[in-house]
Amino acid sequence: MASALSSLFSEAGQLANREEPVISRLMKDALETEGLISLAAGFTDNSLLPDREVLAAAEKLASEQPDRNWLQYGTSLGRPGLRQAVIEHLRGFYGETGLNIDPRNCLISNGSQQSLYLTVQLLCNPGDRVLVEAPSYFVFLELLSGLGVEAVSIPTLANGRWDIPALAQLLEQWDSNGQIESLKLLYFMGTYSNPSSRSVPEADKVALAELLRRRERPLPVIEDMAYRELYFDKPWPARSCLSLESWQGMPVLYAGTFTKPLATGLKTGFAVSHNHDWIQALARIKGHQDFGTANFCQALVEILLRDGFYSKYLENTRPVYKAKMDHMSAALEASNIRTQGWSWQRPEGGLLMWLDGPSDADTRIGSSIWQKCLQNKVLYVPGDLCFAGSNPPRNTLRLSFGAIAMDDIPEGIRRLGTALSRSQNSSLYT
Amino acid sequence: MASALSSLFSEAGQLANREEPVISRLMKDALETEGLISLAAGFTDNSLLPDREVLAAAEKLASEQPDRNWLQYGTSLGRPGLRQAVIEHLRGFYGETGLNIDPRNCLISNGSQQSLYLTVQLLCNPGDRVLVEAPSYFVFLELLSGLGVEAVSIPTLANGRWDIPALAQLLEQWDSNGQIESLKLLYFMGTYSNPSSRSVPEADKVALAELLRRRERPLPVIEDMAYRELYFDKPWPARSCLSLESWQGMPVLYAGTFTKPLATGLKTGFAVSHNHDWIQALARIKGHQDFGTANFCQALVEILLRDGFYSKYLENTRPVYKAKMDHMSAALEASNIRTQGWSWQRPEGGLLMWLDGPSDADTRIGSSIWQKCLQNKVLYVPGDLCFAGSNPPRNTLRLSFGAIAMDDIPEGIRRLGTALSRSQNSSLYT
Repeated sequence: MASALSSLFSEAGQLANREEPVISRLMKDALETEGLISLAAGFTDNSLLPDREVLAAAEKLASEQPDRNWLQYGTSLGRPGLRQAVIEHLRGFYGETGLNIDPRNCLISNGSQQSLYLTVQLLCNPGDRVLVEAPSYFVFLELLSGLGVEAVSIPTLANGRWDIPALAQLLEQWDSNGQIESLKLLYFMGTYSNPSSRSVPEADKVALAELLRRRERPLPVIEDMAYRELYFDKPWPARSCLSLESWQGMPVLYAGTFTKPLATGLKTGFAVSHNHDWIQALARIKGHQDFGTANFCQALVEILLRDGFYSKYLENTRPVYKAKMDHMSAALEASNIRTQGWSWQRPEGGLLMWLDGPSDADTRIGSSIWQKCLQNKVLYVPGDLCFAGSNPPRNTLRLSFGAIAMDDIPEGIRRLGTALSRSQNSSLYT
Repeated sequence: MASALSSLFSEAGQLANREEPVISRLMKDALETEGLISLAAGFTDNSLLPDREVLAAAEKLASEQPDRNWLQYGTSLGRPGLRQAVIEHLRGFYGETGLNIDPRNCLISNGSQQSLYLTVQLLCNPGDRVLVEAPSYFVFLELLSGLGVEAVSIPTLANGRWDIPALAQLLEQWDSNGQIESLKLLYFMGTYSNPSSRSVPEADKVALAELLRRRERPLPVIEDMAYRELYFDKPWPARSCLSLESWQGMPVLYAGTFTKPLATGLKTGFAVSHNHDWIQALARIKGHQDFGTANFCQALVEILLRDGFYSKYLENTRPVYKAKMDHMSAALEASNIRTQGWSWQRPEGGLLMWLDGPSDADTRIGSSIWQKCLQNKVLYVPGDLCFAGSNPPRNTLRLSFGAIAMDDIPEGIRRLGTALSRSQNSSLYT
């Protein structure tokens, strides 16, 4: 029986034989290596986490709601007060004051991640396809792979913007060869994308809507806004698809979260759509998975939003991340890697920097650059993990300035720079 | 495009065209009807919820862990300290002192519910089969249905115990007709089952192990212990499968939780198995769904366990639920329904009572009894929802004494008794 037992989990259900998510491996590496500087982990800055304010909110809950319902089950959809607060919060963003959405069209999920997962479960069968950006959020790519769904890149211009005419051509090609039947979803990040830190101009969203509206079958779209709150100087000047007239009547889901901008440990995110059927269907599946995000976490976030703490907190948070990004940019400029063919953009928000290497660079897990970085005790996210398809670019990498202490940034970048230096490591480039 | 849009979510992925979980509908009914007494909701008693202790634990976290990692991301598997505490907690149960399990074989999930969901995702494809008790936990049955998996009842004796010889016969029949290939899992509740409040004698677990061990292919088994802590006078005198020699080397998962016995609003449960592959595989899928249960909730539960609060809390909690059960039993005895052919057992733990009606009773949603109860403003869980198969018994119902206030129990049972009274409502029985 022993051999049968060992093979039990590789021959059973459709989700059995999948690899461990890369993010888990990276986190473990980061946690277990002594003295390692992680530029990989997508964590936020511990020193910013609102510990006192969360405690105060808990005290307030206890005194305002002596019925203790905040420690009781809620519903699959989430707390009505929090859903109302989410809609009001969205109305505070650039160009969204007119946003008119019933709170029943908002689902509270375990981070925005669960809303992404539920949507793919809802819309896709194994073998189906989802259009993603190039590069795209690598945990979303893993999620797709885990559910047996294929990711296909949206055609992209050299400047990182969507190539809408090429996308139109791709869709027409799929129309004619029948592959269009398997296309079920398009996923993009609207602001300070993970990993590229790019934001999508309003004109590109409008162009996408015009393309999709001309087509016979509606294509559901997720606009992931996980980093929207985390701008540096000013909000990204583009409305979400929820508020754009050109998207009216089209199936679009706004995924947002309070993990990244407030507290990752509260694991509270949300999904909002004008399409009530979509939200209801997500709540149905969530009813099977956990019938509701921890009510205590929801109640805390509700208090922090309601009492105005959240917006004050963001005002204090933004300059810190901006300073860390400035520090990382300066360290990168001080390294010799720009002369080695590496380039990057200064992000306008978020927690990440995206580096493009010379065409012969190879940053993949196990590559010489990867090994050299592990020797130097510095960790990055290999960029190939962030692309759909079997032949991703190998010459990119993602750095995070979210969790790292300010003082460690120069040393982390110095170690990275040494590892990337062609003169010192000619064998690192292929 | 409008018509195409409305059909989008019924023609898309495999999870699209499913009904809203019954539990959600019941909860909504309970919340929205003025003056309704719910004997249906599986909520716990708000007056017992440990509000002050949760606040104190949060204060303690903040002072003990100034690095604030309790508000930061954790890992998909869960907090090491909590996983260690879970194993130690299990060692405190009847006959489990020798339990030797590495904390890496424990996964923290969003309630035990998520561990059930992840396991079905892991092991089952649509069309596969899972053996369940008769009756079984109705949210588990809905979960199976949502994932396209068929539930089949374990043959059961009139006294509610498993009919192991009949189960052996069923499996042999499936062996010979090839249906055995689609059997992927057996699920049962070890103690104070939802809905029957039955507990499984150790002898029955041993007999099941002996049957399964004789077979060629191992059959994964879940022992759900969600209510184990909530005994009234003494712990149920049976070891879990984790500690039984007869189960050694067989694939079995122990699902437990801190929601029901501690605080439903913290939504923190766990899965433990000797089979490391099983736990790792669940963590992999969880890595896609939410990469880890809210770290704050985990950290709070860890403190409450570590500092001995949890066991003291249970000591105070048990007499309250026992008193409520006694009160409900007395009210049922005082009603006239026993003379009408209704019967029930006094539970030895848990939050539920299970009523068996005369063979011509019909308690289903929409039945005359159901309608009469809604008119009387009292809600129960129709028993047919708790059975596998297309032709479930219609003459059972589930009552909960968990959430209801002590003082409302007599009135709730009076309303139910009136609705069930044959003399007053001859048309209610078919």
